[in-house]
Amino acid sequence: VKIALKRGSLAQQGRNNAGRIESIMDLKNALKKLNELETASYALRHAMSVLYVDGDTVAPKNSWKGRGASLGYLSELSYRQMVNDETGEALSVILAHPDEVTPMQFRQAEVLKEEYDDMHVVPMNEFVEYQKLVNEANAVWHEAKEKSDFPLFAPLLEKLIAFQFRFAELKGKGQKKTYDVLLDSYEKGACMADLDPFFNSIQKDLTPLILEIAKKPPIGMDFARFTWPIEQQRRFSERIMAMEGLNPDNCTLGETEHPFTDGVNKWDVRITTHYHEENALESMFSVIHEGGHALYELGVADELQFTSLGMGSTMGIHESQSRFFENLICRSRAFCKPLLRVMREIFPEQMAGVSEEELYAGVNRSHPSLIRTQADELTYPLHVMIRYEIEKAIFEGILKVNELPGVWNDLYHKYLGVTVPDDRRGILQDSHWSGGSFGYFPSYALGSAYGVQMLRRMEGDLDVWGIVATGDLRPINAWLDEKVHRFGKLKKPADILLNAMGGPLDPSVYTHYLQEKYSDLYGISL
Amino acid sequence: VKIALKRGSLAQQGRNNAGRIESIMDLKNALKKLNELETASYALRHAMSVLYVDGDTVAPKNSWKGRGASLGYLSELSYRQMVNDETGEALSVILAHPDEVTPMQFRQAEVLKEEYDDMHVVPMNEFVEYQKLVNEANAVWHEAKEKSDFPLFAPLLEKLIAFQFRFAELKGKGQKKTYDVLLDSYEKGACMADLDPFFNSIQKDLTPLILEIAKKPPIGMDFARFTWPIEQQRRFSERIMAMEGLNPDNCTLGETEHPFTDGVNKWDVRITTHYHEENALESMFSVIHEGGHALYELGVADELQFTSLGMGSTMGIHESQSRFFENLICRSRAFCKPLLRVMREIFPEQMAGVSEEELYAGVNRSHPSLIRTQADELTYPLHVMIRYEIEKAIFEGILKVNELPGVWNDLYHKYLGVTVPDDRRGILQDSHWSGGSFGYFPSYALGSAYGVQMLRRMEGDLDVWGIVATGDLRPINAWLDEKVHRFGKLKKPADILLNAMGGPLDPSVYTHYLQEKYSDLYGISL
Repeated sequence: VKIALKRGSLAQQGRNNAGRIESIMDLKNALKKLNELETASYALRHAMSVLYVDGDTVAPKNSWKGRGASLGYLSELSYRQMVNDETGEALSVILAHPDEVTPMQFRQAEVLKEEYDDMHVVPMNEFVEYQKLVNEANAVWHEAKEKSDFPLFAPLLEKLIAFQFRFAELKGKGQKKTYDVLLDSYEKGACMADLDPFFNSIQKDLTPLILEIAKKPPIGMDFARFTWPIEQQRRFSERIMAMEGLNPDNCTLGETEHPFTDGVNKWDVRITTHYHEENALESMFSVIHEGGHALYELGVADELQFTSLGMGSTMGIHESQSRFFENLICRSRAFCKPLLRVMREIFPEQMAGVSEEELYAGVNRSHPSLIRTQADELTYPLHVMIRYEIEKAIFEGILKVNELPGVWNDLYHKYLGVTVPDDRRGILQDSHWSGGSFGYFPSYALGSAYGVQMLRRMEGDLDVWGIVATGDLRPINAWLDEKVHRFGKLKKPADILLNAMGGPLDPSVYTHYLQEKYSDLYGISL
Repeated sequence: VKIALKRGSLAQQGRNNAGRIESIMDLKNALKKLNELETASYALRHAMSVLYVDGDTVAPKNSWKGRGASLGYLSELSYRQMVNDETGEALSVILAHPDEVTPMQFRQAEVLKEEYDDMHVVPMNEFVEYQKLVNEANAVWHEAKEKSDFPLFAPLLEKLIAFQFRFAELKGKGQKKTYDVLLDSYEKGACMADLDPFFNSIQKDLTPLILEIAKKPPIGMDFARFTWPIEQQRRFSERIMAMEGLNPDNCTLGETEHPFTDGVNKWDVRITTHYHEENALESMFSVIHEGGHALYELGVADELQFTSLGMGSTMGIHESQSRFFENLICRSRAFCKPLLRVMREIFPEQMAGVSEEELYAGVNRSHPSLIRTQADELTYPLHVMIRYEIEKAIFEGILKVNELPGVWNDLYHKYLGVTVPDDRRGILQDSHWSGGSFGYFPSYALGSAYGVQMLRRMEGDLDVWGIVATGDLRPINAWLDEKVHRFGKLKKPADILLNAMGGPLDPSVYTHYLQEKYSDLYGISL
């Protein structure tokens, strides 16, 4: 009998009943391996995260030339840490002993096993090549967007899509449709079979209202004719972050083309915004939106930090938090009271004579538009639906990269009645694809729907609108901390949602909320 | 004969004449190992560098809580990459075959072997513990300086010093004095036996002039009574960087308590400054100084990038470049012409009626002061000498941490005749010790001396002052690129210096330059 000794391994030798030699890792060593894996994963995640944030914010433009090699090496390390027989064995051993480990250890193993299963099917060289591609694609997308030059970005997009096909095939083992694999990676369990009717119902419920509003004269925003100096907007951001309860010692604000949130632990979260001189509200809602993501990361329990559970759950739940603050709270009538107070202080000239009701109408006026991140709450889900349809067609193989701008523009015309003037304001507007995120967009719509159901539950526990009217949103955040944030990934996504929403997802709660708000605002009886 | 088989090693088995088994790595595998080491070293250096810069600039204040674990892990990795038998063997094999490798490969092995020799004597746990300590010390020093609270920083400083003693003992193998080991790590070959007479000669030559000037009425700087809004200073920095020839696509400017330069490759260099509303010149000279460091990194040859040779040589040579631009070029009469033009444009009110001669007197007026980074060119080396004396006493074991503020204040009184009002403007002013840099300060004085000898040589090749008067310093930089920058660490420090200075170090060239400049400025005949 030949004994394969794995030097430096934690594996031990045992003899089973059949007399064959096989390695069996004991639970103690499996837990030791778990800790080593968590330490390495955290460190590499932290380093790569800071490299990405830095690259997107303050790094010199050409710094990408030296970042690829570095990210490639770190990716390779994180791959090697995760994908090896010892890791797989350790995780399996822990999962086979649910009663002998803590619930946290069990859940760590569960979450890491999902990651292991996804990663170990991908060959390392492809994994590393993909990471380098994302770094390059990000730089090229920035340039392409600036120049409104889709053909510049197209070859990279093609490569990114080819990788997605390949990875999804490996992960789904040929048993699942490509796009379903992608959807599932952002929102556990999400699939086209559920999302098709979800978007259908949204479109069916909202389109009549959108058409009705299009016939009405525009409301509010007389004050929109002013310019809003960037320096004042920066001070405004600080005030908004304070109202939302974001502690600047744990969360800073940067400036990027496309706003984002990056958090690696509860003491280090970065959000970004983009200032426009002609519009202070756009950046304000970006800060509030990203601030909602940040509050989630900042609220994860201390004991989960530096582990694979020390971060927000699915992307849909993450978006439920960001869009909760952005729309449900900060586009409410109640919030316009403290908001107007602060805006009058920072922008006395621009806000002179503006009433709460005008501000409320201004921040909620609905009109079909070109840019998703600037869209109003009512038309927003249609922007998402367009991306969903396009991604679906890409991954069903019926849409080629060179056809994307045309199809994009057609769908914007079909669903929103707008004409896309250039690719910068069309197909190139979002950063997601350049970062390799395909299947992410539906999370925005799901998150919006989750959020409304959480709000209905919160209203039973708190005097929500009384609190919002004070401008100090911390009690709202405390409720979300208690129901959602503190769990990180400790609970399963479905359990977190059930706990916070008090029932299963029901898109009619979301569409009903929008119908009620917008029929009231525009004096329409449905 | 027992054969120890190192699995996964590049070692091969050979049998020597005595019949004993030993491992011999062939050159091909040694070079392969060299490349692997360079790839890993670059990636880890890059990541840690960005983590430090980020932590010092835009990261949230509390982010240090999550950075220690990450830096600790990356440090451990870089230690493991460097300190193992295979690395030592590979480097020795390459160094034993000088004729079969390229000069670059040979020099890579030489530089890495020095690093290996220094590191492999330090146990890994101590190395990692030290990296974590530096991360913490940096955060605490910031707070201590802000509060002018030396006792807050003292325990960390004690630990840092204890580590230096320990490491120096290990590196010097008990054969070298602690402070000589430290000096050598920043300036190859530097030692107290040479630096004592160097500083003595500086003090002897300059003290009479300093005393003479102290008797004269202050000159220039009538315009110093104005305030200089930070926003205007930021625009001024951009202009200064452009004049110095710094391409913002490769080099960005951040804002920190203590200005610094960090460069990991020629496409990604970060410099920082600190703005003071009451003084625009201080930040300007910081930008120019750090810009000089940056130009060095930006000028290293393409083919040396991503290797251990792809960066500036010793700290003294680095400081020669920064202080070259700061003092020799930008505090010259010739530079006051384009400088005044730009300052009048950015600060029209403050600079109204100021003449070139007033500006020249203003940027050069000498008066004994408290802060090294704000010191004039003449008194500056005495600030360095005070630090040299203190570090020497610490590492000769005759000065305890709690005695430092007192000794610092005494020496400032003795050599500069100034009274230190608080530790913020005394012992806590510099960041070096909090970053674990002991023995670095003398590099500033050595660099100043190197720079003057380079200038004398440059004057033989170029119409230096004609070029400077145009405000476009790129031809100056091109000369330095040719003589210094492009070599990175490819040439030995002594060869680079000899090449650029045209002869050995001679402190009298430096003191003569200062005597001439300042006796002229103050109308003193020496």
